Amino acid sequence: MSTSIPGFHAVVPAGGAGTRLWPLSRAGHPKFLIDLTGSGRTLLQATVDRLLPLTGEGGVLVVTGARHAETVAAQVPELGTADVLAEPSPRDSMAAIGLAAAVLLERHGEDVVLGSFAADHVIHGTEAFERAVREGVVAAHAGYVVTIGITATGPSTAFGYVRSGASLGLDEAPSVAHAEGFAEKPDAVTASAYLATGEYRWNAGMFIVRARVLLDHLAAQLPPLAAGLREIAAAWDGPERAEVLDRVWPGLTKIAIDHAIAEPVAAAGGVAVVPGDFTWDDIGDFDSLAHLLTGDTLGDDDLTLRIDAPGAFVVPGGGRTVSVVGLPDAVVVDTPDAVLVTTLAHAQAVKSAVDGWRARGREDLL
Amino acid sequence: MSTSIPGFHAVVPAGGAGTRLWPLSRAGHPKFLIDLTGSGRTLLQATVDRLLPLTGEGGVLVVTGARHAETVAAQVPELGTADVLAEPSPRDSMAAIGLAAAVLLERHGEDVVLGSFAADHVIHGTEAFERAVREGVVAAHAGYVVTIGITATGPSTAFGYVRSGASLGLDEAPSVAHAEGFAEKPDAVTASAYLATGEYRWNAGMFIVRARVLLDHLAAQLPPLAAGLREIAAAWDGPERAEVLDRVWPGLTKIAIDHAIAEPVAAAGGVAVVPGDFTWDDIGDFDSLAHLLTGDTLGDDDLTLRIDAPGAFVVPGGGRTVSVVGLPDAVVVDTPDAVLVTTLAHAQAVKSAVDGWRARGREDLL
Repeated sequence: MSTSIPGFHAVVPAGGAGTRLWPLSRAGHPKFLIDLTGSGRTLLQATVDRLLPLTGEGGVLVVTGARHAETVAAQVPELGTADVLAEPSPRDSMAAIGLAAAVLLERHGEDVVLGSFAADHVIHGTEAFERAVREGVVAAHAGYVVTIGITATGPSTAFGYVRSGASLGLDEAPSVAHAEGFAEKPDAVTASAYLATGEYRWNAGMFIVRARVLLDHLAAQLPPLAAGLREIAAAWDGPERAEVLDRVWPGLTKIAIDHAIAEPVAAAGGVAVVPGDFTWDDIGDFDSLAHLLTGDTLGDDDLTLRIDAPGAFVVPGGGRTVSVVGLPDAVVVDTPDAVLVTTLAHAQAVKSAVDGWRARGREDLL
Repeated sequence: MSTSIPGFHAVVPAGGAGTRLWPLSRAGHPKFLIDLTGSGRTLLQATVDRLLPLTGEGGVLVVTGARHAETVAAQVPELGTADVLAEPSPRDSMAAIGLAAAVLLERHGEDVVLGSFAADHVIHGTEAFERAVREGVVAAHAGYVVTIGITATGPSTAFGYVRSGASLGLDEAPSVAHAEGFAEKPDAVTASAYLATGEYRWNAGMFIVRARVLLDHLAAQLPPLAAGLREIAAAWDGPERAEVLDRVWPGLTKIAIDHAIAEPVAAAGGVAVVPGDFTWDDIGDFDSLAHLLTGDTLGDDDLTLRIDAPGAFVVPGGGRTVSVVGLPDAVVVDTPDAVLVTTLAHAQAVKSAVDGWRARGREDLL
């Protein structure tokens, strides 16, 4: 049984359309709202399930787009209405997480440590996850921006990497090390070279940091963005929220937290890595999803028929039967208004179908 | 303008499930009831359109299964109610065509010449078709069982062949020759060898023959079948039809007309070949269908999107969009209850999907 971590709050950015999982994932019904693993819980629900024991009741804050706020609240009724922050429009991850940090600071004061965990990742290995978070919180209290570095199971070219250096030497967080820096998604040769060093881990975009530290870094790097978020947060729980949001939000700098904070602060020695020895995937495309599932069907297997088609991945999401004949490793996704047919090897190219329909004016499909 | 041929009647056997065109073609909605070419007319309608000018009004008889009789009548309202013969159960082509021949003999007497043309073939080249039929009727009056031999456009392994010999020497049918015999679907090498001789043509299963001659051949080859058909035909237009059908039909020998008549009579010198210099296809599978159409879509092209998928053949028959990414020569058939995904090269294997669903107890899909 896990016990909650005093002063620890979880922030769950719930955004992103997941276009490479189209037509399963749509702009109006993105992947975090979907039970992509067949577990009975959507990715968002599973994320909250994982975090609530660590924060205790009232410790999870979801930041999402205004169009999804109602669905989010319905999916995680265990959160209070104040625990779902609705962004008027998408301004990338720095604004989302920065807003949460600023609101937490207003609500709970200087000692708040926040951990940011995307709503659409899949994690198996609760104990290892908890261990990483607990050590990360210790290092965060020591002033670091802590990132969880996932132990790589192979030289993936789909993820970025973080490089570990010397141990921080913290008694209560013995495995946390200095981060030497981040690397973008590498090619296969580079990825293998990374793993051979034993120093590289997958960068899962999970950050643990004191809210004050995060906002101070932001104030140093992007003062107008920090000021804007501070102004919005001060008004958030009062009568002026709408007015301030209307005025300030549209002008906030659109930037990812990686570029705004993680990379420059790592260069200055302020980022630490805590190893994450759990199974993690961001389910970026159908190839990733197919490998994550135990079977070749997401949904009712009675609706699928494969003949001379080993490894064909089928999502019978429209209630219709799907027959695949002579196409190993095919991907067939059936939904009520769109059928996608491709292969595991073309999983990354699915985005082009979304672009294609957009160019044809079929916004209703996106 | 064509003028009708005195005494000529057309028989259109409308049967066969077309399982290799599943799920477009179903047992309850077979391919002859479908507009497979996008012409605006179903295959059955196009067949009747082609024949009525040659027979004149009232000269086309459709023989179909009882379950399809109502739909057939609705599709070709230009036929009278007496011109659609409903078989209680399928007893193969000899029973179907033999029944029509016997009924025609009862109704119109000894001089009737019938031409049998399947309801689910596609023909382009009306003039050449008419020329072949007119010569065929001349040879039929001379006592021959006449088959139309289609000029082959290539060494197809999907069709059977008929071999021509010496000319019959008929003044009004100068191109009709003796048939030396029939050959089953050959392998590719054999097919090429056939074409090299200049003597082989595709056997399209079209027969032109005097009804009396056909029934006499049948009486010689299969006396009980001939007698059964004669008894049914005598009762057909009277009050006892149902009683006689109930009693006699189930016991009729199930055999194709090729085996019952064409092959043995050819061996005895009684079959003639009239060359057919028109485009013909029996649309046996999706590869054949794809090659027959001018585009890659059967249906509304606005519903299809191909990315890195040249030659992908799509049937958007369920109103949904269909996107194909990275699969050249794929075949995607979308219908309201079944989606089929395969390749042109696997077109012949589609039947196995039908078998697969039957084994799973999904008769509703077949």
